[in-house]
Amino acid sequence: MKALVYEGSGRKAWTEVPDPVIRDPRDAIIQVDTVTICGTDLHILGGDVPEVEPGRILGHEAVGTVVDVGDAVVGLQPGDRVLASCISACGLCSYCRQARYGQCLGGGGWILGHLVDGVQAEYARLPFADLSTHKLTPRVSDEAAVMLADILPTSYEVGVLNGGVRPGDTVVIVGMGPIGLAAILTSRLYSPSHIIAVDKADSRLQAAKRLGADIAVKPGDDPLEVIRSMTGGLGADVAMEAVGVPETFELCTTLIRPGGRVANIGVHGRSATLHLEDLWSRDVTITTGLVDTFSTSNLLTMLGNGQLDVGHMVTHRFPLDDFVKAYEVFADPVRSGALKVALTRA
Amino acid sequence: MKALVYEGSGRKAWTEVPDPVIRDPRDAIIQVDTVTICGTDLHILGGDVPEVEPGRILGHEAVGTVVDVGDAVVGLQPGDRVLASCISACGLCSYCRQARYGQCLGGGGWILGHLVDGVQAEYARLPFADLSTHKLTPRVSDEAAVMLADILPTSYEVGVLNGGVRPGDTVVIVGMGPIGLAAILTSRLYSPSHIIAVDKADSRLQAAKRLGADIAVKPGDDPLEVIRSMTGGLGADVAMEAVGVPETFELCTTLIRPGGRVANIGVHGRSATLHLEDLWSRDVTITTGLVDTFSTSNLLTMLGNGQLDVGHMVTHRFPLDDFVKAYEVFADPVRSGALKVALTRA
Amino acid sequence: MKALVYEGSGRKAWTEVPDPVIRDPRDAIIQVDTVTICGTDLHILGGDVPEVEPGRILGHEAVGTVVDVGDAVVGLQPGDRVLASCISACGLCSYCRQARYGQCLGGGGWILGHLVDGVQAEYARLPFADLSTHKLTPRVSDEAAVMLADILPTSYEVGVLNGGVRPGDTVVIVGMGPIGLAAILTSRLYSPSHIIAVDKADSRLQAAKRLGADIAVKPGDDPLEVIRSMTGGLGADVAMEAVGVPETFELCTTLIRPGGRVANIGVHGRSATLHLEDLWSRDVTITTGLVDTFSTSNLLTMLGNGQLDVGHMVTHRFPLDDFVKAYEVFADPVRSGALKVALTRA
Amino acid sequence: MKALVYEGSGRKAWTEVPDPVIRDPRDAIIQVDTVTICGTDLHILGGDVPEVEPGRILGHEAVGTVVDVGDAVVGLQPGDRVLASCISACGLCSYCRQARYGQCLGGGGWILGHLVDGVQAEYARLPFADLSTHKLTPRVSDEAAVMLADILPTSYEVGVLNGGVRPGDTVVIVGMGPIGLAAILTSRLYSPSHIIAVDKADSRLQAAKRLGADIAVKPGDDPLEVIRSMTGGLGADVAMEAVGVPETFELCTTLIRPGGRVANIGVHGRSATLHLEDLWSRDVTITTGLVDTFSTSNLLTMLGNGQLDVGHMVTHRFPLDDFVKAYEVFADPVRSGALKVALTRA
Repeated sequence: MKALVYEGSGRKAWTEVPDPVIRDPRDAIIQVDTVTICGTDLHILGGDVPEVEPGRILGHEAVGTVVDVGDAVVGLQPGDRVLASCISACGLCSYCRQARYGQCLGGGGWILGHLVDGVQAEYARLPFADLSTHKLTPRVSDEAAVMLADILPTSYEVGVLNGGVRPGDTVVIVGMGPIGLAAILTSRLYSPSHIIAVDKADSRLQAAKRLGADIAVKPGDDPLEVIRSMTGGLGADVAMEAVGVPETFELCTTLIRPGGRVANIGVHGRSATLHLEDLWSRDVTITTGLVDTFSTSNLLTMLGNGQLDVGHMVTHRFPLDDFVKAYEVFADPVRSGALKVALTRA
Repeated sequence: MKALVYEGSGRKAWTEVPDPVIRDPRDAIIQVDTVTICGTDLHILGGDVPEVEPGRILGHEAVGTVVDVGDAVVGLQPGDRVLASCISACGLCSYCRQARYGQCLGGGGWILGHLVDGVQAEYARLPFADLSTHKLTPRVSDEAAVMLADILPTSYEVGVLNGGVRPGDTVVIVGMGPIGLAAILTSRLYSPSHIIAVDKADSRLQAAKRLGADIAVKPGDDPLEVIRSMTGGLGADVAMEAVGVPETFELCTTLIRPGGRVANIGVHGRSATLHLEDLWSRDVTITTGLVDTFSTSNLLTMLGNGQLDVGHMVTHRFPLDDFVKAYEVFADPVRSGALKVALTRA
Repeated sequence: MKALVYEGSGRKAWTEVPDPVIRDPRDAIIQVDTVTICGTDLHILGGDVPEVEPGRILGHEAVGTVVDVGDAVVGLQPGDRVLASCISACGLCSYCRQARYGQCLGGGGWILGHLVDGVQAEYARLPFADLSTHKLTPRVSDEAAVMLADILPTSYEVGVLNGGVRPGDTVVIVGMGPIGLAAILTSRLYSPSHIIAVDKADSRLQAAKRLGADIAVKPGDDPLEVIRSMTGGLGADVAMEAVGVPETFELCTTLIRPGGRVANIGVHGRSATLHLEDLWSRDVTITTGLVDTFSTSNLLTMLGNGQLDVGHMVTHRFPLDDFVKAYEVFADPVRSGALKVALTRA
Repeated sequence: MKALVYEGSGRKAWTEVPDPVIRDPRDAIIQVDTVTICGTDLHILGGDVPEVEPGRILGHEAVGTVVDVGDAVVGLQPGDRVLASCISACGLCSYCRQARYGQCLGGGGWILGHLVDGVQAEYARLPFADLSTHKLTPRVSDEAAVMLADILPTSYEVGVLNGGVRPGDTVVIVGMGPIGLAAILTSRLYSPSHIIAVDKADSRLQAAKRLGADIAVKPGDDPLEVIRSMTGGLGADVAMEAVGVPETFELCTTLIRPGGRVANIGVHGRSATLHLEDLWSRDVTITTGLVDTFSTSNLLTMLGNGQLDVGHMVTHRFPLDDFVKAYEVFADPVRSGALKVALTRA
């Protein structure tokens, strides 16, 4: 089969590789029908994720059709159309028993396209398939469902639920990439009074407003002053960091009111400064998190009901054989305007 | 009357000042019977709290007897024996209505010995007296009660409750000053399986073990390794910072397991480094907080029932007229072995 | 002034009474601008609330203008336009300190039109005025605001928050009177996937659908079967009782899934049967509650933002002098189609 | 092998049956080392649990040694010493994914000695063995561990956690059988100020005091008055029902304060009367539940640490061959004084 293979820092190829096979009785093999690219894949290609070895097939977000299952798989059979979640779960370890699948100690967690071969391929092996896939109803399109492989549950669990968004809240989200935009969509499930989007790019702020942000601000236009003026000088109830650099994290800690919460969603490569000399007495809560995907099933239900409109998230579409071109478009969003790209089996 | 007056950075005196009077109908005046000194008072004397103006009477922890009340005070009358809480509460603002008295927007919060004259004096004015004092039963001694003016509720609310200590947890507390020791006492209310105390001083580690710590470790003796060996390599469920310097805060963030919590109790004057490159995916929760004293009434009940043994907290006792000497002893704990000092009306 | 006076079981009059005066320094006097009638007022007139003595002015839901304040009132002054909440709060007792104002032990709770004279009058005395009123912005009309005196916070706190409604939930609400309809509006703040309304009257089911119910069912049309068919046989996540008779409460306990919640909002005069032989192993949670009105300020903000559309709630309007006629209309909703009535100063 | 077989209402025998065998790749077979009898077993023998068919081996509480495992079992191997939990869990259904194993939809839940053969036998088959057993350390004795097969997690999850016991609370527990006594032990993990035990039998009240109850009251000695006198007239924070008859449930609902909680633990065969005419406005929360055993691992840790002293729970000991006699003793606690009995392999 063909697959998108990482060949070392800065190098990748859509190339011929052996077909995946069942290795553990809990595995399933899927034919990949629709797949997307994540910002994390770019980090890997940049050489920033050293545990990814050359030869690894990338990708952790796909919709596919089951073609084979191991002997211990009880809930899937060939022909089932499934969402392949970015997180795999052994189901037995102490973290999995609390639905903290992202922290799985039994061989799961974020492994696809990272520690084992991923889903940017014609076929893929899914470990712990019963707990790591979600059967899809015909009401949900491939392209919509694949938004729930990572970005929707990440924004919801690590942003909205960790941030404790409640009706009437003022919520600020810094970073309007796909995750930040998804955080707008999922925050709205809790009816905040105001969602303020912060980003440098006009195009992304426009996307934010289309998805439901009430106010769009550039970092240079003093978001602190904007938020204070809306909140009687107090600050936001919740700030979400969706960029992954120290500056935006530090901005978030200044934007919240006493008793507020900062939910970090961004993937960080450097440490940030925590101004405890200001924050120690302000009753703040700061959370970090890798998605657990415990919410995916519920989000799929809401997607099927029309409660989540992910229609604006995919901006570019390609056949699988154009994977290299899709990476180019996704890696240059300023020029291409790309949010998420979708690659589909011919 | 006599009072302990801040006279500018590095200077204080036990000196004659005018008696306090009712200024607002919600005020009460107490005769101070027992009073103590807080580490924060030393910070003020060090000039680190610039909003404290010369001439200010210090102190925010006392037990006294009501001698006068304003017209709008409904729950107190002369002769009542009360605990004067470190936090005053207007009771009307949005924070007070959520029992977040430490963040009071209506003129309360930490004001005693800070923004208004405090309780290190023969008499003191207590603003918002109905919500800022607690009537005492004869079952509770002055010396025990005064431990509940600040350190017990601070360690309980900002350490134990923010940290979410639960039965069976492994809890590490860094810093065995009065607040850290109080955090041992109050953590035990939730039956953690292990409490690990970290401090440089042998005498304080010995005090920690007397109060219920299971294990005492010096920072140089690799607390991370100690905790990992106890937790299958995972780390502590909860770490509490009770020193107030960047190094101990940063240590706390390394000691917790994925999904763990860092509850900052320390008063910080400098920023710390937050290693988001490690923490972003570890599901950590970091909290800060000023005490609200919403728990004080409950802690008093437990003190009266014998559930909280604060008997080891006061190490030195003085008459009020020896206030300057009491400060000397308290300010030099390495030499004096002081934890808390108690000053009592003759 | 004129007021609506309870004259014993079955008797009432709009009649001349003395003007109210300040009795406690925390009182305020308002001129009543807009006022409504509650189902509870009908219960009182039916003689079902024996603690209400003849001579009592009824009513606990009004918007008015402050005309006088006691010496201890700090947040109000003559001319302020305020919402008079159905619950008064002393602010000092153990319940008020937890924002459980409905259970106030200090003379508050539900007292207006019950234990003290109410607001169905030209003027009214409001005890504990600082904590029992909410200043209104011009963005909010009298008629909309008066819906937040009782029914919106009741449905939200006692129904939605006690019921723990979450995004994606299936919620069933039994009883489509004003409270049940308000529960639809406030449930939607948490984005349930399905709201099922149950009532006998077609007109009320139609109102339910206008306000956002997805499905409307009559009790005779087997709501259990309807809900099971929607939930894979499991049952609803949350059932709210908004009638106040044993049959509807018992229905609610059958409609929920294992692990589900029954939030009782209805005012009951008789005991119900609790089928513990079925329920003991089903992990159910049943809650009751009197509104605390801790959410009123937040609901007012959302009303001002356009997040709560209460425009369909008031069906009939009268001048104050037509109070007796307004009662007739409100007491006969089958004939009149009345939901809430609004009476307005000429 | 020999096993205790239910032979229809009122009849049982310790008799020869075929050895159990692996039927599903997730099964394990254990040799039973220590086993006990539950009150539920008596209900089955009384014919009250009609889904139990004649021929069924009873029992759902044992410690044993693994002798065989199915191909899909990953965490166990022959020779492992394990606790067999009363609840089996498929690990895949929507309830198991929330750790609500008691409500398992995939073939688990309470099945042992109920829907499949149980553990009152020389050998037993354990379905879903990975998720339904707990490996034991040598620090924990068989007899102590077997108390964690059912009664400790039941009292903890369904009583203490559902009841929300907090430090300083007043807790009343009605019924001092094994479950009620276990609820005393596990309540103490949260440091309530007062535990009041209610039972008719002096011997059980004495056991309650040995295990940590502060006050022991007979139902005829007006527990309501006792509790009111301790709580300023308000009532208990938490009441736990551990009998399973309507009268004790109804008693519990009268004993709690406004805002209090009733946690039903008892197994009920008849409906109770819920006095909504009193309770509707009192902010009560009533919970029911089947144990999920999500806490078992943590309780085992605390048992190993010496935090849970179950040494008083087992009053009578027998070899396996005396199973019929053990039932006689357990079924007549008034005469025998039995709490729990332990049967041990020769």
